[in-house]
Amino acid sequence: MKKLPSPKTVAEIAALLGGAAVGDDKAVITGVAEVSSATASDVASFHNMKYVEQAKASLAGCLLVPEAAKDAPCAAKAKVVVADPQASFAVLLGLIDGARRSAAAKGGVSPKASIHPDAKLGAGVSVGDFSVIERGAVIGDGTTISAQCYVGEDVKVGKNCLLHPRVVVRHECELGDAVTLHPGVVIGGDGFGFTTDRKTGRHTKIPQIGNVVVGSGVEIGANATIDRATLGSTVIEPGAQIDNLVQVAHNVRIGAGAVLVSQVGVAGSTVVGRGAVLAGQAGIAGHLTIGDGAVITAQTGVMADVPAKAVLFGSPGRPHREAFKLQALYGRLPELVERLKEIEKKLGIGDKKDAAA
Amino acid sequence: MKKLPSPKTVAEIAALLGGAAVGDDKAVITGVAEVSSATASDVASFHNMKYVEQAKASLAGCLLVPEAAKDAPCAAKAKVVVADPQASFAVLLGLIDGARRSAAAKGGVSPKASIHPDAKLGAGVSVGDFSVIERGAVIGDGTTISAQCYVGEDVKVGKNCLLHPRVVVRHECELGDAVTLHPGVVIGGDGFGFTTDRKTGRHTKIPQIGNVVVGSGVEIGANATIDRATLGSTVIEPGAQIDNLVQVAHNVRIGAGAVLVSQVGVAGSTVVGRGAVLAGQAGIAGHLTIGDGAVITAQTGVMADVPAKAVLFGSPGRPHREAFKLQALYGRLPELVERLKEIEKKLGIGDKKDAAA
Amino acid sequence: MKKLPSPKTVAEIAALLGGAAVGDDKAVITGVAEVSSATASDVASFHNMKYVEQAKASLAGCLLVPEAAKDAPCAAKAKVVVADPQASFAVLLGLIDGARRSAAAKGGVSPKASIHPDAKLGAGVSVGDFSVIERGAVIGDGTTISAQCYVGEDVKVGKNCLLHPRVVVRHECELGDAVTLHPGVVIGGDGFGFTTDRKTGRHTKIPQIGNVVVGSGVEIGANATIDRATLGSTVIEPGAQIDNLVQVAHNVRIGAGAVLVSQVGVAGSTVVGRGAVLAGQAGIAGHLTIGDGAVITAQTGVMADVPAKAVLFGSPGRPHREAFKLQALYGRLPELVERLKEIEKKLGIGDKKDAAA
Repeated sequence: MKKLPSPKTVAEIAALLGGAAVGDDKAVITGVAEVSSATASDVASFHNMKYVEQAKASLAGCLLVPEAAKDAPCAAKAKVVVADPQASFAVLLGLIDGARRSAAAKGGVSPKASIHPDAKLGAGVSVGDFSVIERGAVIGDGTTISAQCYVGEDVKVGKNCLLHPRVVVRHECELGDAVTLHPGVVIGGDGFGFTTDRKTGRHTKIPQIGNVVVGSGVEIGANATIDRATLGSTVIEPGAQIDNLVQVAHNVRIGAGAVLVSQVGVAGSTVVGRGAVLAGQAGIAGHLTIGDGAVITAQTGVMADVPAKAVLFGSPGRPHREAFKLQALYGRLPELVERLKEIEKKLGIGDKKDAAA
Repeated sequence: MKKLPSPKTVAEIAALLGGAAVGDDKAVITGVAEVSSATASDVASFHNMKYVEQAKASLAGCLLVPEAAKDAPCAAKAKVVVADPQASFAVLLGLIDGARRSAAAKGGVSPKASIHPDAKLGAGVSVGDFSVIERGAVIGDGTTISAQCYVGEDVKVGKNCLLHPRVVVRHECELGDAVTLHPGVVIGGDGFGFTTDRKTGRHTKIPQIGNVVVGSGVEIGANATIDRATLGSTVIEPGAQIDNLVQVAHNVRIGAGAVLVSQVGVAGSTVVGRGAVLAGQAGIAGHLTIGDGAVITAQTGVMADVPAKAVLFGSPGRPHREAFKLQALYGRLPELVERLKEIEKKLGIGDKKDAAA
Repeated sequence: MKKLPSPKTVAEIAALLGGAAVGDDKAVITGVAEVSSATASDVASFHNMKYVEQAKASLAGCLLVPEAAKDAPCAAKAKVVVADPQASFAVLLGLIDGARRSAAAKGGVSPKASIHPDAKLGAGVSVGDFSVIERGAVIGDGTTISAQCYVGEDVKVGKNCLLHPRVVVRHECELGDAVTLHPGVVIGGDGFGFTTDRKTGRHTKIPQIGNVVVGSGVEIGANATIDRATLGSTVIEPGAQIDNLVQVAHNVRIGAGAVLVSQVGVAGSTVVGRGAVLAGQAGIAGHLTIGDGAVITAQTGVMADVPAKAVLFGSPGRPHREAFKLQALYGRLPELVERLKEIEKKLGIGDKKDAAA
């Protein structure tokens, strides 16, 4: 349970969320909690049918529910019916999180940071202890650079960004507005590029002199790495959501609103379409195009272009209906071999193979 | 070879390890070494049968061996027979490592660290250069915070923990006693949570206001990331061992003594049982339960609950006996097709398909 | 487009690269650009046949081409024919990158760094803000330690190395000359070693007292982790190229010139041969030998030794010709089942199975 900044009645919560209160709308709610642990003074959200039994037994004072669950039996004293309980619950969580974030943002510029005199900081910028901001960097209004960050030469950071502790943005990279980078993110490491002498096998580095351009509203998870382009830009379009430990190689373009789940890797020069979803540990080879809205399931390996809205599964990835059918047949291989043996027996062939099968 | 803090006879080593000396127990040992490179003044350990030939040829002055290898021919001048040579060898390595660690821990609190006046440091706490400890953080007795770490607001760190350089523990997270975090670990990054507007495809962040609770005796490898819960706690139970670059998502629970090998990913709200082993690069989908003592082999993808003590293999994962049989049959597909063609020939059918097969 | 440090004629570029100018060799080139976006004042490179249409339509003032494309129709005003356009283009990129790097290297030793009096810095060494260099560390001539790095006790760093911001090299590890480490790299984290009590399931750490030895010319990508050996050394031989988020476990040896693409994992004590290529997300089990020049394709899992020059594909990995054939047959499983059913029909057997198939 986490306390709300101030107590609210169920009616006030309904009004805040644009929902309809059902039951005791004068009950006072002081905190938010998970369905399974909420008490009479908490509001919780029911949005995942997997946990319907928990919802039924919930002791929450108030439960956010979708229209479809309006009349479901439920131990909660009151319900608030909303279009999207998860989104509404996020609004309540934001009340709590916002208080902390605005406190953190009031820190101003730490005297323990190292800021080059030729860097430009906008109004209301915070810079934490031991952060380094190099010559020519420009930081937009209202942006928070937490402790121990590194912002390289000529980097441009937009407004209202949040760089958590220990983020690195190397020279000349650009972030839009309201970008969030989690601890350990590296923006603008060199792309993995070299030429190899065919005779000696010796590798020679190809200098990587491009940059990374991160669009507005992008969030990038802890220890993810986005490499700078050889020349030109690696681009993360606005609104893309990137999880922890993801690798985006040089000259890649990630489409607006695309979702890259943890440990995904995208190789060089590939274009990922708008709204595409790459699930956990998926890998995309280089120089490919993944269509808008395509879904690459977890651990899938993609070695060819993918049409828009296609759903791929497997390594190598195939369209999911085909892939699921093949997986089912794969599981039936022992049966198929038995049938083959039966046929051979009937025909009087294949004696030698029987032993091996 | 690494020198022991002080020379020891074989008899002294046997006494220290509770083992039985065989051969020249007055020989003086000054260092520890690997079986393959040990010399007459070194003690080495033989515990991996893969390297039995190396053991036979070892020039070590003293070899730790299990009871089963007591009488094996061996060039070493002396043996010490112990129950678990690897564990006994670890004791000797600890003599060397302990000397360095206790020296490092004597550093005290660096004047170059930034420690909020409202943080509380226990007795014997060390804090390295350029580390930041925020308001309300509490650090237990005997804990070492190395250089360049970030310990957020209201974080609780237990006793005798070791945070290597450049660890981040974000606000409100909690570490038990004797927790070891390697460089680059991020505890408490935001969980990957957002809602998506079905019409516009626009994502809205779900604030992640829970925390991470790490149990006593847990060790977490370099650049691993453990996300904070949306609400409530992501929990790593006592004694779990987590390797480098592992991802643990929000609201996950990792059972006591579980082992997560490098590059494993565990998606949101999944529960991993006590003593379970997730081998390298395995991926576990969200909202699942992995039973106690289950083994998920390397690169396996888990998309459904796993019973206790089950062993899974493959992507998607199947019980390993079934999976191994299927892999074997898969490898025999060319033969099975040949058999099919032979039958078709005998029956006078399938002419057209022969070309394609 | 990025500007060259100074304008050059096509003839000058040809001379610099040892190539032959074709067309207007007096044209003045002021920048480098990608084929698709180059203008009349830019030089671009054509080396990937995938982009041949872009090359034909390129408005570049000068295009670097291989001998084979000497006479290809092309909108560029001039061509320079070279043996390896990509390598030659790298030379031009290096003119631009070199200017920035030499400026960065002139920073000297920051007064905001923390350098132990018993550390030794060679001539021309730079150390950035908030870096820590511990007792006994030795830094070779001309090496740049960027901001926020940690160099542990008794570490040896060679000449002309470049440690990007926020690199950690733990105690006693050694780097050769001209080693490049990208942000977030951790050299010398503890190997993942412990013994487990069979009765209690309790794990006991095996102290990791070896080190990591990185050869000359090695480059390691952002947030990659190279663990120290239990005893002895984890070795990265000269010239190996390691991409972002790669995991190299304790006591591994990576051969000279080997290439490890992003998110590869190599488990303990494995030996990877010279010039071997491990493609993205491949995983290699422990205690194996991967032969010289072997190629492990993306996402492949290796569970047995691999001969020199073998090419493996799949999880578990198989020789690629076999693996590709098996994948093709796998895709034809529905057809094979149909053929089986046809035979059964003809023979009047298998009625019950028809429904299931």
